[in-house]
Amino acid sequence: MINWLIKRAQVSSQKTALVYRNKSYSFKEVYQTASHYAGQLASFSIKSGDYVGLLGKNNRETYFMIHAIHLIGAIPVFLNNRLTASEMNFQIKDSKVVCTFFDDSFETISRDLSGDCYAFSDVEAKTPKAFLPVEMDFSDVASVMYTSGTTGYPKGVLQTFGNHFFSGTASALNFGLNPAKDAWLCVVPIFHISGLSILMRSVIYGIPVFLEEKFDVASASEKLLGGEITHISVVETMLKRLLEVNQGPFHENLRVVLLGGSAVRKELIESCFKRDIPIVQSYGMTETASQIVALDTSLAKEKIGSSGRILFPSELHIEKATETDLDGEIWLRGPTIFKGYLNQAEATKNAFSNGYFRTGDLGHIDSDGFLYVAERRGDLIISGGENIYPTEVEHAILLDENVLEAAVVGKKDAKWGEVPIAHLVVRPTFEEERLVTILKSKLAPFKIPKSFHIKNELPKTASGKVKRHALK
Amino acid sequence: MINWLIKRAQVSSQKTALVYRNKSYSFKEVYQTASHYAGQLASFSIKSGDYVGLLGKNNRETYFMIHAIHLIGAIPVFLNNRLTASEMNFQIKDSKVVCTFFDDSFETISRDLSGDCYAFSDVEAKTPKAFLPVEMDFSDVASVMYTSGTTGYPKGVLQTFGNHFFSGTASALNFGLNPAKDAWLCVVPIFHISGLSILMRSVIYGIPVFLEEKFDVASASEKLLGGEITHISVVETMLKRLLEVNQGPFHENLRVVLLGGSAVRKELIESCFKRDIPIVQSYGMTETASQIVALDTSLAKEKIGSSGRILFPSELHIEKATETDLDGEIWLRGPTIFKGYLNQAEATKNAFSNGYFRTGDLGHIDSDGFLYVAERRGDLIISGGENIYPTEVEHAILLDENVLEAAVVGKKDAKWGEVPIAHLVVRPTFEEERLVTILKSKLAPFKIPKSFHIKNELPKTASGKVKRHALK
Repeated sequence: MINWLIKRAQVSSQKTALVYRNKSYSFKEVYQTASHYAGQLASFSIKSGDYVGLLGKNNRETYFMIHAIHLIGAIPVFLNNRLTASEMNFQIKDSKVVCTFFDDSFETISRDLSGDCYAFSDVEAKTPKAFLPVEMDFSDVASVMYTSGTTGYPKGVLQTFGNHFFSGTASALNFGLNPAKDAWLCVVPIFHISGLSILMRSVIYGIPVFLEEKFDVASASEKLLGGEITHISVVETMLKRLLEVNQGPFHENLRVVLLGGSAVRKELIESCFKRDIPIVQSYGMTETASQIVALDTSLAKEKIGSSGRILFPSELHIEKATETDLDGEIWLRGPTIFKGYLNQAEATKNAFSNGYFRTGDLGHIDSDGFLYVAERRGDLIISGGENIYPTEVEHAILLDENVLEAAVVGKKDAKWGEVPIAHLVVRPTFEEERLVTILKSKLAPFKIPKSFHIKNELPKTASGKVKRHALK
Repeated sequence: MINWLIKRAQVSSQKTALVYRNKSYSFKEVYQTASHYAGQLASFSIKSGDYVGLLGKNNRETYFMIHAIHLIGAIPVFLNNRLTASEMNFQIKDSKVVCTFFDDSFETISRDLSGDCYAFSDVEAKTPKAFLPVEMDFSDVASVMYTSGTTGYPKGVLQTFGNHFFSGTASALNFGLNPAKDAWLCVVPIFHISGLSILMRSVIYGIPVFLEEKFDVASASEKLLGGEITHISVVETMLKRLLEVNQGPFHENLRVVLLGGSAVRKELIESCFKRDIPIVQSYGMTETASQIVALDTSLAKEKIGSSGRILFPSELHIEKATETDLDGEIWLRGPTIFKGYLNQAEATKNAFSNGYFRTGDLGHIDSDGFLYVAERRGDLIISGGENIYPTEVEHAILLDENVLEAAVVGKKDAKWGEVPIAHLVVRPTFEEERLVTILKSKLAPFKIPKSFHIKNELPKTASGKVKRHALK
């Protein structure tokens, strides 16, 4: 199949593809620029099918680099720019990238990264070489994003072009689509599936993405009031700030405010309804190429607390331990489910049963098929839209030899939704300051517990596993 | 993947799926009834993967039978109900169907059909058996329709569920989609891809199909004026009758009047624009699971005469005999292209080059990528080394207002190889001499028909296309 950007440059050449810092780029212009970058990338010894690290941000250069990497048939491994060098190096080594490209603003951290690293300006300095745009297949890997899951060690999730395509069509079948008027505001990171999915939908639908460098409540409000934006993806903290700054409704053209991430407080949802804000709760993860369950806006008021129904044509199954349980493990099947974990045949095999992806999350469905998520996998903490896996943080804490036992749990937080806190059993020689120094060298700042609670012992199951739930 | 009707019965249970003779059926009701039929079909010895003949019409029973056949995993071979028994028997034998189900109104012809044949009432008389709904895969065959193509012998076109899905999404990406309001009026036969594709889109989109037993201009007009219908598929003759009966525009909710089949006269298109009728020209065939090229309504006025641009994400290539040719063979590639011809490995192989389906049709694309179809396959007349396209001659003939219908075909000629001749339906005031004067002013001498044959009517296909082949 032809590369979708090339396709759009043919059939939607004059339509706007990107709006960045108030400058518009048509699909034709985007293709031309991405193609120029692709020619420059071709100067590096990258072959079709190679994995390349991409340490970018929500800016023009990163946007073009993603398209350029696809044009030469390579596969971007998206590095979360909030991670430490040590966290990034784990992913760089695990994915065996041939090299890493970074936005010039990450020059400092890049010095600590493994393997060959090139700044975007190094790419831009090259004379473009001729290259043949590489075709894509639905089963080809389009992107890799790392996620920890329950085991603690991050694994690279292989998202195919098919995953992105079917996620896009599922969303269009649910929300409808108006190719002449729709436009999606991207204030979430494009190294996360929430952001990348917007970029992919832009080329699949032939609609503009309004790309914002970061979530700026004033800038986002202005756009939501302006009438050009029909869709926005947000996490809870963003929504709260938008509601604080704006007292009334947004422009009537705004059709979908897609809310991902953590379960959201009922009061917040209700205050959206009062202001006619078309909030859509959803459920999804890196392995499902974004939302796979979403609430129809028309039913949102009746089903507060639900994440919605499984999108077309995917399937949801609740695997209960016993018949009488209310909640069971959420299993998912369909064309948006990831291909597997990179270089992890065993973990991939374990993640599936009967063709279903076992999410590790718990929940139930009501008689109308609406999903209620009770618990995210492995006690996942979602803080300002970022996933924090307790196991990973606990492993880092245990590097301090004065800590004997550790349990990390989420605590409700007015600003971030949740923040991590740690419960510890320690030696007399323990010093909190020293632990924090260790953690800072190992973990991204958002993962570092906001408080440490010293205990005599931690609650455990009969088999000796810490009962994190009992600590909440 | 789960059967799409079951899926819709889950996620869109209360939405209207079918409106037939002013009675509405929700997706849940459609599933229940289709499921009942499926249980009755299970009483016949049909296995998943079996081909079964289906001689139906645009009615309630045929609609449910199609869904029922899919539920048990069998594959309907659609018999065109205008064929003779001998033509149907060719298809029945060629496809090796295990049996044929027919609407009771075809009892007479059914006596002359080969193999086991059962009336729908035979099915309805059975006590339903328990059955397990069969899952579907994008690569599974969903439907078989026979088409002659260039070779003369009809071949069974294998259309997969994937073909139907991607055709549906391509159409939605082009025209947009409003799942809450869209509704498609089906006045074309459901044994043709133009009709079946509407039924498939109904379950893919979760929107109603308004099924009409036949094209009745009064009934269709009433619906197009009523506001419930957003889409209709028509052929040229239907459009002309609709325009004759209605002087003004239709309801503003009507978004798409999808025009398939033959190339259409400019005057007809222009008269649609004058009345704000959202006419969309398209190009497609049985092998492409309906439209694969369509004109955006926004560009329709600028590109009169074009069938539009290739739909996302398919590809179009013009294969020219020599560089200097204007027209070349239209080649198509993408996920809506059929899987092959049933039991015809050789013909299937010959139909493809470099992964492209060779349509046999001729055309060219302009610098904006718009396709202009010069000639549908098999009708090209070659006379003394010059190419003559019947459509062009017919358009010229129709400039004479005393001519109502025209079909130009090639006739063997000792001197020139072939010469064009015309078959006409005319008004009593027609004068051949006057027509020839008009033609001489419009066409090169070699293109002017060597004889004119006055007929009471021209042979047409069920979808209203003139069968030039039958006139040869």
